[in-house]
Amino acid sequence: MVEIRKPILVSRAVELVMQNAKLLATETVTLDAAYGRILAEPIIAKHDVPPFNRSPYDGFAVRAEDTVGASGENRTPFKVVEEIGAGHVATKQIEQGEAYRIMTGAELPAQADAVVMLEQTVEGEGTFTLRKPFVEGENISFQGEDAKEGEALIHKGALIHPGTIALLATFGYANVEVAKQPVVGLLSTGTELLNVDEALVPGKIRNSNGPMIIAQLERMGIGHQSYGMLVDDLDACTKTVERAIAETDMLITTGGVSVGDYDYLPAIYERLGAKVLFNKVAMRPGSVTTVAVLGDKLLFGLSGNPSACFTGFELFTRPAILRMMGAENPYMPYMKATLGEDFTKPNPFTRFVRAVWEMGEAGPVAAPAGFNKSSAVSSIARGNCIIVLPSGTRGFTKGMEVNILLLGAEQGVSKWAL
Amino acid sequence: MVEIRKPILVSRAVELVMQNAKLLATETVTLDAAYGRILAEPIIAKHDVPPFNRSPYDGFAVRAEDTVGASGENRTPFKVVEEIGAGHVATKQIEQGEAYRIMTGAELPAQADAVVMLEQTVEGEGTFTLRKPFVEGENISFQGEDAKEGEALIHKGALIHPGTIALLATFGYANVEVAKQPVVGLLSTGTELLNVDEALVPGKIRNSNGPMIIAQLERMGIGHQSYGMLVDDLDACTKTVERAIAETDMLITTGGVSVGDYDYLPAIYERLGAKVLFNKVAMRPGSVTTVAVLGDKLLFGLSGNPSACFTGFELFTRPAILRMMGAENPYMPYMKATLGEDFTKPNPFTRFVRAVWEMGEAGPVAAPAGFNKSSAVSSIARGNCIIVLPSGTRGFTKGMEVNILLLGAEQGVSKWAL
Repeated sequence: MVEIRKPILVSRAVELVMQNAKLLATETVTLDAAYGRILAEPIIAKHDVPPFNRSPYDGFAVRAEDTVGASGENRTPFKVVEEIGAGHVATKQIEQGEAYRIMTGAELPAQADAVVMLEQTVEGEGTFTLRKPFVEGENISFQGEDAKEGEALIHKGALIHPGTIALLATFGYANVEVAKQPVVGLLSTGTELLNVDEALVPGKIRNSNGPMIIAQLERMGIGHQSYGMLVDDLDACTKTVERAIAETDMLITTGGVSVGDYDYLPAIYERLGAKVLFNKVAMRPGSVTTVAVLGDKLLFGLSGNPSACFTGFELFTRPAILRMMGAENPYMPYMKATLGEDFTKPNPFTRFVRAVWEMGEAGPVAAPAGFNKSSAVSSIARGNCIIVLPSGTRGFTKGMEVNILLLGAEQGVSKWAL
Repeated sequence: MVEIRKPILVSRAVELVMQNAKLLATETVTLDAAYGRILAEPIIAKHDVPPFNRSPYDGFAVRAEDTVGASGENRTPFKVVEEIGAGHVATKQIEQGEAYRIMTGAELPAQADAVVMLEQTVEGEGTFTLRKPFVEGENISFQGEDAKEGEALIHKGALIHPGTIALLATFGYANVEVAKQPVVGLLSTGTELLNVDEALVPGKIRNSNGPMIIAQLERMGIGHQSYGMLVDDLDACTKTVERAIAETDMLITTGGVSVGDYDYLPAIYERLGAKVLFNKVAMRPGSVTTVAVLGDKLLFGLSGNPSACFTGFELFTRPAILRMMGAENPYMPYMKATLGEDFTKPNPFTRFVRAVWEMGEAGPVAAPAGFNKSSAVSSIARGNCIIVLPSGTRGFTKGMEVNILLLGAEQGVSKWAL
């Protein structure tokens, strides 16, 4: 009576999901709406940066030739003919022994070829003296030294973070071409589920997966369309799923993917003619995680257990969404850490343990974030990373080196390496 | 003529800012608006988790005593009297040799004390047989094993991330007490600044700091109130700053903090009677970063150079905002990394180098993200971390161990350790 499912490796499951993530269209947004989006065009330097030879200091713009021979015993005097504030340009010419007062960021006049810092002078009334010679080009930020006009500075597919915004602003990108964000449908299955504002009744629990996934999407800047909580009724479920798929770019369901009598998702996938990419992954928690495709839409059947649901989203759904937007770095970053506690449970499958990493004396140390069963919610609220414990061993002890996946990192990596 | 400023250490500057960050009030938000906020109350387990003894599998709930003696040669038969779906409770009693069909997540009936997984049975019509005995309590998720009613699970001051949302939902926190977010005023000084939609003209550049800081705030989920770009006119500037301070909880200005003739911020602070905490920090870029206090409001005078402005925000403004909200982990996380490139510039001050870290064979490797001057914008758009190079040495070479600060990390650390 029990369907036997063949587990596939996490890396293979990731690969299958990514192969089936279809690229969305692009759209134009204004710069002030661009933060957090994925660039759909490269950032090209529209002009040299700096756009002109610029003074990096407050001081005086001089002709280097006029400073020859200056010394402590033989201070060279200059007469100031004009003052150039940032944003202003010189209107006068200078001759031998003349100089401009110039402010940080101001354009160097054509006749001057060196900048003397205020601190290097003794000032008088409209005059100053120098005690050392300056060479041509000294203390100048040269036009184009930071970027040349036409240079491609940032690829398309990059995340637009605050630094990216600065670059876009510099080049006058008042509008930016970015990937459209998917419309994500969400529905939680299970007659045992109550809404957050309902009182507990025997046999029931509140739906924590729905709000959690909404927040996981929100963390990515992605909205959602909720299809509520389905009762365990196959016909009603099928209709709702069908409507949700029609109205969205991808669908996330929680629960209903196990092999129990009320686990309707497999039957719904079959009725709708969806192709199941996998329905068992060699991981704990979340081995029942199921992903199917209908047309060009991915259907994520995440486990009803909160930790499994959380992990399934981060491992599979998040990179798929990023891939749909053409992101170049869709995967969670990872690093090595020292295991901070024994974790002796046997691991027939790869185990993903919610954990807290901190910097220790010798490097990062990661310790499980408390009670660790797939049903546990308290540990989810503590972790800032996921420890990845490979399958095929008998357990892990404190001090061993493990890989950790960083949760909530702004920028990811281009390859799934674990 | 030039004011001599005494530089203070970065750690001391951080300390002064944090000491002057005043705690904001709290407010109640609905759960669906709570993501990214700072908890102003602890999360208390409102009930045991699980709230009842629960079946972790699809299978049968039995009395362990009835399974005594079962073996492959002597399979013990059971009669199924009732089926308990998740969210339902048993209505019938069982007697010797009887069992319930039970689904994952369903409440274990009082009379049963063990769960037999479907895979461990051979099913017939309303019956099944077992080939091994079960002990009392086998395969049961016990009431309260994840959390006990009344237990404080998460401190106030914690960031509400998706896992926290799951926990709040579990306990029926339809409303959550969170820290109010500060109203942050923003103004950019400098006559050299153009808006993003303006064409370049000689001597001018577009304002990149304003949009960048707005995005840095947005990354924290914090809005802003813009006071536009001030012209370099002391009276006009003073009035605008005064109004901005009156209307906001804190003020960020960019530019105007150097010692040039048009650097009005020092004069404005003096006119308004603001207490300057520091006006020179032993860091590059951003040594001119100035922070003042007026009443209980912090005034951040960030450098007009984009990289310096960016760094000043991340080092000082961000933790101050988090402290104002009572966040327990206001500082950027850091870790050790191997320097991926020579960085031979001398460092009279601590240097903060925008960089990219990646996982290498032997651990994280961080390399400067391109051209590195405080005016450079292209490197800002590439970095995912900041390399911290201590002062007092002659340069750093590839392969040396350095500390890096992680940019855009969701969760920070409680202490400034660098």
